[in-house]
Amino acid sequence: MSSNTVHVAILGATGQTGGVIVNALLESKSPKFRVTALTRPSSLQKPAVIEMANRGVGIVTADLNGPTKDLEEALSGVDIVISTIYGGNLMDEIPLMDASKSVGIKRYLPCFFATVAPPKGALRLRDMKEDILNYAKKLNLPYTVIDVGWWYQVTLPRLPSGRIDYAVMETMDGIAGEGDVPFAMTDVRDVGKYVARVIVDPRTLNRMVFAYNEVMTHNQLYDLLEGLSGENLERKYVPVEAIRSSISKIEATQPSADSPDFVMLAQYQYWYSCCVRGDNTPEYAKYLGYLTTKELYPDAKWISLESYAQEVLDGNAKRVYEHLQHLAPARAVETK
Amino acid sequence: MSSNTVHVAILGATGQTGGVIVNALLESKSPKFRVTALTRPSSLQKPAVIEMANRGVGIVTADLNGPTKDLEEALSGVDIVISTIYGGNLMDEIPLMDASKSVGIKRYLPCFFATVAPPKGALRLRDMKEDILNYAKKLNLPYTVIDVGWWYQVTLPRLPSGRIDYAVMETMDGIAGEGDVPFAMTDVRDVGKYVARVIVDPRTLNRMVFAYNEVMTHNQLYDLLEGLSGENLERKYVPVEAIRSSISKIEATQPSADSPDFVMLAQYQYWYSCCVRGDNTPEYAKYLGYLTTKELYPDAKWISLESYAQEVLDGNAKRVYEHLQHLAPARAVETK
Repeated sequence: MSSNTVHVAILGATGQTGGVIVNALLESKSPKFRVTALTRPSSLQKPAVIEMANRGVGIVTADLNGPTKDLEEALSGVDIVISTIYGGNLMDEIPLMDASKSVGIKRYLPCFFATVAPPKGALRLRDMKEDILNYAKKLNLPYTVIDVGWWYQVTLPRLPSGRIDYAVMETMDGIAGEGDVPFAMTDVRDVGKYVARVIVDPRTLNRMVFAYNEVMTHNQLYDLLEGLSGENLERKYVPVEAIRSSISKIEATQPSADSPDFVMLAQYQYWYSCCVRGDNTPEYAKYLGYLTTKELYPDAKWISLESYAQEVLDGNAKRVYEHLQHLAPARAVETK
Repeated sequence: MSSNTVHVAILGATGQTGGVIVNALLESKSPKFRVTALTRPSSLQKPAVIEMANRGVGIVTADLNGPTKDLEEALSGVDIVISTIYGGNLMDEIPLMDASKSVGIKRYLPCFFATVAPPKGALRLRDMKEDILNYAKKLNLPYTVIDVGWWYQVTLPRLPSGRIDYAVMETMDGIAGEGDVPFAMTDVRDVGKYVARVIVDPRTLNRMVFAYNEVMTHNQLYDLLEGLSGENLERKYVPVEAIRSSISKIEATQPSADSPDFVMLAQYQYWYSCCVRGDNTPEYAKYLGYLTTKELYPDAKWISLESYAQEVLDGNAKRVYEHLQHLAPARAVETK
């Protein structure tokens, strides 16, 4: 291993976000990354883990609820730790952050990788992430937060013909309000490429970074898909008040973070935050202190929504399955 | 009023921090400030308020618990709002922030003006300030946070001769641990000058700023005072564990924000944060995302601790009385 190889340990490596990050790190030429997947003892024999090992990823056992000493050992020689843990288990990051601090990790990425939202009060999942970030700050742990906006892969609505059903997974059941609130989107496949640049960029140390490809309103998105497909889309406008009411109803039950209702709540709150409040924009991100990939990396190549949509229409896209089980649950449930 | 006059409304104008800010704004030549004191109906006839009016400060009634419409009216034509509210009443800022948002205030300064500390978990008073800041962020309200470190005026220990008792008000009952943790200090009279520059500086919009004069350890501070006074000081080293234990004891009683115990808790937590954890330093401030006045204003004139101490020894200093009643209660109680 050359001395300029950067050693990255990743929690949640077999999830959707973790997976694209691992791919990008393995593909990177400069710098070269050595990648270690922090893996639960019970997952060592999973096919996805074995497949990763075959691709050159180091597999290291890490029990987040086990002894600190073992976690510290798992992080021995690691430069950067990335968490893409399941949202409901965010608090399990605490021991990993403690161990990261004690072994002198150079940069820790807590599990954000979602849309831009206020630190508190709009999205319960984001509130929890803020607690995690605050814990890192109390530790004086070097960190970088990366948010990535809404994925193309969970944004396109179905077509009347049914011909893109194989690939799409819309997580919003219709168009919020008038459909004229812009929100930022990213192709999930680009997430890894952004992460690979951000984590070795001194400008992003102890900062939040917003990685995104395009900003569009729901109406513009429907227009685009109609133009490309030649089909007419029904536009189901959902009154803002109805979304608010769905949120209140679930909130009233105080769902625990590991419950399906929590996932449903997150789903509605994402929708409201992005498409009603308009939080998920570069402007609001900058107000909150984020750097943006557009400004950091004006040279970056990224997939346009149009090009992704054409790929879907051509039958060449892949549905994002994995995150149903592992990650970003808020996007994984249809808001019916 | 010329068009380039900046209209500042201030809450807590008769307090210690509010007072030095009002002075600096009134003294500023460029820009010129128009200053309005947001005043409780019950305080309109107070001597300090009448004295301010005589110095050209506009007095406007503001009842934070009154109708929003009235608050919005009080802020009519105001560019910048500064809150230096009493720490125990921080949550009263919420309606003021709502009104500031609805009338389009260009910049809102929530009541920080204290030491640098992590956003959560080290100082209960700071935790509450973070809640206020998060509320501003949820509103997308343009803001600036200013922290100012520890005041000289509450730092110098007494001398055996008693000759500086007239001026000093040490808030830490001894030296924490080994006395070798550096912390940043500011002459309270400089706070206003820093604020007057920061609030019209576009670089500080939606940012946190750390204004400070000098960084020193407790031992260095005692050395300095011994050298200047020619007296020998007793150094009462307080074990870290004893401070921790005092904090735990008060925390266990869960004091409400308006109780004397809360003030006592804040006192101990400030001490622990500054002198044990070492939070109140430019380095940690930068890690947390603060800009610093040293970097923003390398030309700024400020009073050195040595010069302040000499002033005290010469009998020319003034004790900070007012903040006992109005402000920074955590610094106003001796930790006996």
